[in-house]
Amino acid sequence: MIIVMKNGTTEEHITKLSNWLSERFNVQVNPIYGTGTTVLALVGDTGAVDKDALLLDKYVERITKVQEPFKLANRKMHPQDTIVKIADGVEVGGKKIVVMAGPCSVESREQIIDVAKNVKKNGATVLRGGAWKPRSSPYSFQGLKAEGLDLLHEAHKETGLPVVTEITNPAHIELFMEKCDCFQVGARNMQNFELLKELGQTDKPVLLKRGFANTIEEFLMSAEYLMAGGNKNVILCERGIRTYETYTRNTLDISAVPVLKRMSHLPVVVDPSHAGGIYWMVEPLARAAVAAGADGLMIEVHNDPAHALSDGAQSLTYESFEETMNSLRSIANAMGREI
Amino acid sequence: MIIVMKNGTTEEHITKLSNWLSERFNVQVNPIYGTGTTVLALVGDTGAVDKDALLLDKYVERITKVQEPFKLANRKMHPQDTIVKIADGVEVGGKKIVVMAGPCSVESREQIIDVAKNVKKNGATVLRGGAWKPRSSPYSFQGLKAEGLDLLHEAHKETGLPVVTEITNPAHIELFMEKCDCFQVGARNMQNFELLKELGQTDKPVLLKRGFANTIEEFLMSAEYLMAGGNKNVILCERGIRTYETYTRNTLDISAVPVLKRMSHLPVVVDPSHAGGIYWMVEPLARAAVAAGADGLMIEVHNDPAHALSDGAQSLTYESFEETMNSLRSIANAMGREI
Amino acid sequence: MIIVMKNGTTEEHITKLSNWLSERFNVQVNPIYGTGTTVLALVGDTGAVDKDALLLDKYVERITKVQEPFKLANRKMHPQDTIVKIADGVEVGGKKIVVMAGPCSVESREQIIDVAKNVKKNGATVLRGGAWKPRSSPYSFQGLKAEGLDLLHEAHKETGLPVVTEITNPAHIELFMEKCDCFQVGARNMQNFELLKELGQTDKPVLLKRGFANTIEEFLMSAEYLMAGGNKNVILCERGIRTYETYTRNTLDISAVPVLKRMSHLPVVVDPSHAGGIYWMVEPLARAAVAAGADGLMIEVHNDPAHALSDGAQSLTYESFEETMNSLRSIANAMGREI
Amino acid sequence: MIIVMKNGTTEEHITKLSNWLSERFNVQVNPIYGTGTTVLALVGDTGAVDKDALLLDKYVERITKVQEPFKLANRKMHPQDTIVKIADGVEVGGKKIVVMAGPCSVESREQIIDVAKNVKKNGATVLRGGAWKPRSSPYSFQGLKAEGLDLLHEAHKETGLPVVTEITNPAHIELFMEKCDCFQVGARNMQNFELLKELGQTDKPVLLKRGFANTIEEFLMSAEYLMAGGNKNVILCERGIRTYETYTRNTLDISAVPVLKRMSHLPVVVDPSHAGGIYWMVEPLARAAVAAGADGLMIEVHNDPAHALSDGAQSLTYESFEETMNSLRSIANAMGREI
Repeated sequence: MIIVMKNGTTEEHITKLSNWLSERFNVQVNPIYGTGTTVLALVGDTGAVDKDALLLDKYVERITKVQEPFKLANRKMHPQDTIVKIADGVEVGGKKIVVMAGPCSVESREQIIDVAKNVKKNGATVLRGGAWKPRSSPYSFQGLKAEGLDLLHEAHKETGLPVVTEITNPAHIELFMEKCDCFQVGARNMQNFELLKELGQTDKPVLLKRGFANTIEEFLMSAEYLMAGGNKNVILCERGIRTYETYTRNTLDISAVPVLKRMSHLPVVVDPSHAGGIYWMVEPLARAAVAAGADGLMIEVHNDPAHALSDGAQSLTYESFEETMNSLRSIANAMGREI
Repeated sequence: MIIVMKNGTTEEHITKLSNWLSERFNVQVNPIYGTGTTVLALVGDTGAVDKDALLLDKYVERITKVQEPFKLANRKMHPQDTIVKIADGVEVGGKKIVVMAGPCSVESREQIIDVAKNVKKNGATVLRGGAWKPRSSPYSFQGLKAEGLDLLHEAHKETGLPVVTEITNPAHIELFMEKCDCFQVGARNMQNFELLKELGQTDKPVLLKRGFANTIEEFLMSAEYLMAGGNKNVILCERGIRTYETYTRNTLDISAVPVLKRMSHLPVVVDPSHAGGIYWMVEPLARAAVAAGADGLMIEVHNDPAHALSDGAQSLTYESFEETMNSLRSIANAMGREI
Repeated sequence: MIIVMKNGTTEEHITKLSNWLSERFNVQVNPIYGTGTTVLALVGDTGAVDKDALLLDKYVERITKVQEPFKLANRKMHPQDTIVKIADGVEVGGKKIVVMAGPCSVESREQIIDVAKNVKKNGATVLRGGAWKPRSSPYSFQGLKAEGLDLLHEAHKETGLPVVTEITNPAHIELFMEKCDCFQVGARNMQNFELLKELGQTDKPVLLKRGFANTIEEFLMSAEYLMAGGNKNVILCERGIRTYETYTRNTLDISAVPVLKRMSHLPVVVDPSHAGGIYWMVEPLARAAVAAGADGLMIEVHNDPAHALSDGAQSLTYESFEETMNSLRSIANAMGREI
Repeated sequence: MIIVMKNGTTEEHITKLSNWLSERFNVQVNPIYGTGTTVLALVGDTGAVDKDALLLDKYVERITKVQEPFKLANRKMHPQDTIVKIADGVEVGGKKIVVMAGPCSVESREQIIDVAKNVKKNGATVLRGGAWKPRSSPYSFQGLKAEGLDLLHEAHKETGLPVVTEITNPAHIELFMEKCDCFQVGARNMQNFELLKELGQTDKPVLLKRGFANTIEEFLMSAEYLMAGGNKNVILCERGIRTYETYTRNTLDISAVPVLKRMSHLPVVVDPSHAGGIYWMVEPLARAAVAAGADGLMIEVHNDPAHALSDGAQSLTYESFEETMNSLRSIANAMGREI
C-alpha cells in the first residue's frame, strides 16, 4: 500500500501516522521523502489496513493498493493450477473440460433420472439440479427441498454421475454433506458470508457463482472466505452480470475467464444458460467460454422445457444438448483440450 | 397478463394453451380474437404464471405483465400509508421524519453509549450500530457479534433510544428478538430468502435495505417475502446502487423515493452515508432525500471517525451531525414535516 | 502522478525511464528511493503523460494520478464560483436559482409563444425548446430545424426570455449565434469533440449535458474542451445516467450535484424531466436537486403533453408547472436562495 | 403494437383514440373487446407511434411493442446474410473471417507502412489506423489528421491493403471518400445522427461501432440511419460496454454476437483490443468472438507499443499478433470457417 501525503505535511505528523499504522496493523512503514512529496510505503499484511479511515487524515492525499487483498486464492501465492476433484475421474481444472448438466429444478423421480441418463450419454460428467430454489417471488415454486435432494441422490446411484446442487442455508449443511458431491453457492448468496464461513469448515468442493453485480475482486474475496476456513476445493463460476442491456437476461462477462485464470489458480466454469437466459444463446456462449479458456460448463437441460417449473426458456432439449456437445468438442480440440 | 399469439395460430392450439394455463395456474383465460391477431388476457392471480416457460411455446409472440407481482406491499391493494412503530413515540411513515443514527460498528461500551447520548441530544430517535458486520474480506473486522448486541442493549437502557441492528443469520433471530427493536436486513442479504422467510414469522419491525444491484420490483418482492410470512412491519431503505460511476461509492437512486411511495404503502428511509461513501456528501444527500419525500434517514455518526474500525470515511463527527440536523430541519419544514 | 516501480528495478532503468519521461512530456521527475521500493513522483503538467503506455514498461508496478486531469474547470485553480450570464438579469450560479422551461420540441409559432408566456408568468427566466432533435429512430420527428430556431427567436422577442436550444452540428454555429442566447450540447454529443472544439471558439454560454453513461471526470473533461478553446461560459447539466434499473428512464445521479460543486467552480443545473422520464417524478426530483445545491433546473412544459410530438410523457402541463414552482420556492428559501 | 386499455374504458373513448391513431400515424387499429379488458392491436408502420405520448392517455394501461423499430437492418425483412465488400477479395460476412489490424494512431510514414506490411504478412486483410482521434482530454494527442489520412493511403498503395479509419466530422466526408476504403464511426459517435445521415448518402462501407452504453436496439437503429439514407454497406462492431466492473476497460458483450446475427442480416465484427483494454486479453477474447460467430475482428497492432502515442497498453506486438493469428486459425477451422 502506498500513501501519498499532501505537500507540506510535517515530519512530525508523518512520524505519528507511521507509528499508529505499524502498531495498529502490524505492518512495516517506509517513509520515502522526495522534493515536496512524501510517500509512505507499507510492507507486510496490509489487507486489514482501513483505506477509508486513512482518507480522513487531513494530510493524506491519496492511497494506492499495491497488493490484491486475496491471498489464498491468488495465483501469485500459488502459481500452478488447482485441480478440484468432484468424484473419481471427475476433476475440474485439468485437460478435460467438465460439463455439468441437468434441469434447473428437480421435479420428480422420473424426470431427474431421465435427464441424468440423457446428459451422461451425451458426455456430461456431473449432474446439476436444484432442490432448494431461491426465487424472486414468494409465490413462485420454491423447489422440492429435502425430497429433491433425495431424488438427486437416487439419480446419482442410478447413473454414477456426481451431483452439484445449491445450498441456501447453513442449517442444511449436514444433509448436503451426505447427499451431494459438490455444494453450489448461488449468485444471490455470493456475499452471504455466514454461509461461506460454514462451508469453509467442510472439505467438500464448492462451486461458487459470481454475484450478478459483484466485481472480480469481490468474487475472489468470497472464494477467500471459503479458503480461509480451510476448504481449498473451490470452483469459480461466471454466470453473467447485470448491465443496462435488457435484451439478454444478464451480460456474460467473457473477459472474466482470462482475468480469473490470471489472477487466481482456481478452476473457472461458465454457465451460459443463466447468462443469456434463452435457449438459442446457450450454444454460441458455451463455445465462446471454451475458446476463452474455461475449465468447465454448467448447462441447463430439461426433458420438456416448455413445461418446466422454473427457467424453462433457457433450458436445452435433449436434441439441442447433443448438438451443443458436438459443437463444443471441436472447439475443445482446437484448444488442445477434451470434452 | 397479456399473451400475444403469433399470426396464424390455430384455434385448436389456442384452446389447448388456454386449458393448460387455467388448469395449471388456476387463472381465468379470455381469448380475444382480432383480425389476424389473437390475444389471451389472463385474469386472477397470475403471479405464479411462468413467463419463461410460456415463451417456449412456438405460437407465443410476446407477453406483457399487467399486474405488478407484489400484492401485500402494493399501494393498489392498500391505498393508505403504513406507519411502522419501532417504539413508543417512534413511528416511521408519519409526519415526523425519523433519524436513525450511530456508528457503523459497535466498538466498546463507552463508545456506543457516548454516541447514543450525542445523537439523541441532536434529535435522532433511533440508535443504529452494527454487531455482526458482513465484510467483503475475511480478514477485516467482523464486529463484536453477541457482545456488540449486548452493548447496544445497554445503550438503549441508558438513553431510551430504540435500537436497529443488522441480522445476517436465521440462527440469531431469538437473540435479536430480545435485544433490539428493529431488525436490519443489509443490502447483501436482500435476496437471502431463507433469512427473509424466518423474519417474516416474527412481528418485530424490519428495515429492509435495497440490494446494491436490485431493481425496485425485486426490492418490493423481498418486502413481499416478509409480509407473506405475516410480518407487516416493513420499512424500505434506499442506500445507493452500483453503477459505472466510481467517484461515489454507490449512486444514490433518489428517484426510488417517489417511485416506492407511489408503488407501495410502506415507509421509505434513505441512507446517505452508504450511498455517497464519504462524509461531506451526507448532508446534501440527506437534504435531497427529505425533499424527495423520504420518511426517515439512517446516518452514520462516530465519536472518532478517523479511528473507526469500519467505514470511517463516511461517518459524521458530532459537530457535523449537529449541523446536518439543523440543515435538515428547515427542509423538513418546507415539506410540511418535522424532524 | 506517482509511478510505483517493481521491487528490484535497477537504478539504470529508473534513470532511463526518468529521462524519457522528462524529455517526452516536459515534466519534472523526482525519484524517491525507499527500502526495496522506488517511486517516481512527476511534477508539472502531467495531463498528457500516457498511463497506458507506461504500464507496458516491465518495471512499472502501478500508477496513481494525483492531479485531476482538468485544469480550467477545476475549483482548485479557481476557488470562487463562476457565474454565467445568459442575458441581462439572468445569471446562473448566483443566489437565484434559474429555471429553464419549455417544450421538448418547438412545434408551431402559437405553441412556443404560448408556452413561453406561461412559463414566464410562473417564474421561469429562460425558454428551452428543441429545433434540431436527435432521435434514436430515423423515422421519428426530427424537429423543425431552422424554422424552429426562428420561432424560438420570435418567442424571445415576444416575451423577453432568453433562449437555450440544442446544437448538433458544427455547421450550424453561425445560425445559432444570431438566434439563441445559450447553446445546449445534448447528452449524446457530450463527447462530440469536433462540436465542442468549435463551440469553444465562441463566447456564447454553453449548457453542457452529461452523457448518459459518462463519468463525472469525463464530464469535466468535456467542459475543459470548451474552456481550452477560450469559452469560459460553461454550465454543467446533470440529466440522469443509464443503469440497470428500468423503472425510470434514467437514474438521476443526485450526488453529482455536490460532487461537481466541490470539484469545479462551474454552475450546475439539473434536468428532472429527462432523468425520471415521466411527469409525476418531475416535482420531487426538482425539489431534491434544489436541496442538494443545484443552481438551476431545466424542466419540460407543454401546452398539450398528450399530443406532444416528442417526449410527451415527461412534460408538465401549465397547472402542474405552477404547482411545481410553488413547491420549489419553499425549498429554495430553506436553502437561503430564491427562485 | 398492442395497447392495453384500463378496465371500464368506454367504447366512445376507444373509438376516439382509434381514430386519432389511424389518422395521425396512418396505421390500422383493430380493437379487440374481451371480458373486461379491451386491447387495441395496431397494424402497419407503427415505428413512428409515440409510446410516450400514448401513456399520457388516462385510459391506457400498458403498451407492448410487437415489432422491432428497425426495418432495413432487420433479418425478418432480409433473411439472407449481407456481405459487405470493402475491396476486391475482401468481403465481410462470408466464409472468411476478416481481420482488420493496425495501430491505434498513425504516427509516421515509416510506422504505418511497417505495421501494414507486418499485419499483411500474418493474414490481416484490412489496415486500421486512426488519423482523427477523439480523446477524452483536450490535452492528449489528437492524431495527425489529414496528414495521417495521407499516410494511410500511402500504406495502402504500398501493400494493397484496404484502409478503415475513423471519421468524426461530416465536413471531412469528401476527403475520406478519396483516401480510405471504409469509414469507421467510433463508439462516441454512434448516436451522432448528423454524421450518420451524411454517411448514409454515400455508398462506401461503414464500420459502425456500438456506443459503450448503447443497447443492441439503439445500435441497430443507428445502422438504420445509415441504411435509410441509402447506404446498405454497414458492418456492425461490438467493442465492449461500460459496466460496474473496473478490472477491464470495458466488458465485452459476447452475447451481442449471436443476438445481432439473429436480429439482423448485417455482418458483425468484434474489437477485442478496446473491450479488454490490455494486450494479454486480446487473444482469448478474439478466440471467443470467433467461436461465438463473429465475421471479423479489429485488432490493434503496433511496432512499439510501449512508446505508442495512444492506447499502447492494448496493442499487440508483431510477435504476439502472429501467435494470436495462429491460435485463431484453429478456432476458425473448428467453426468451419477460414481466417
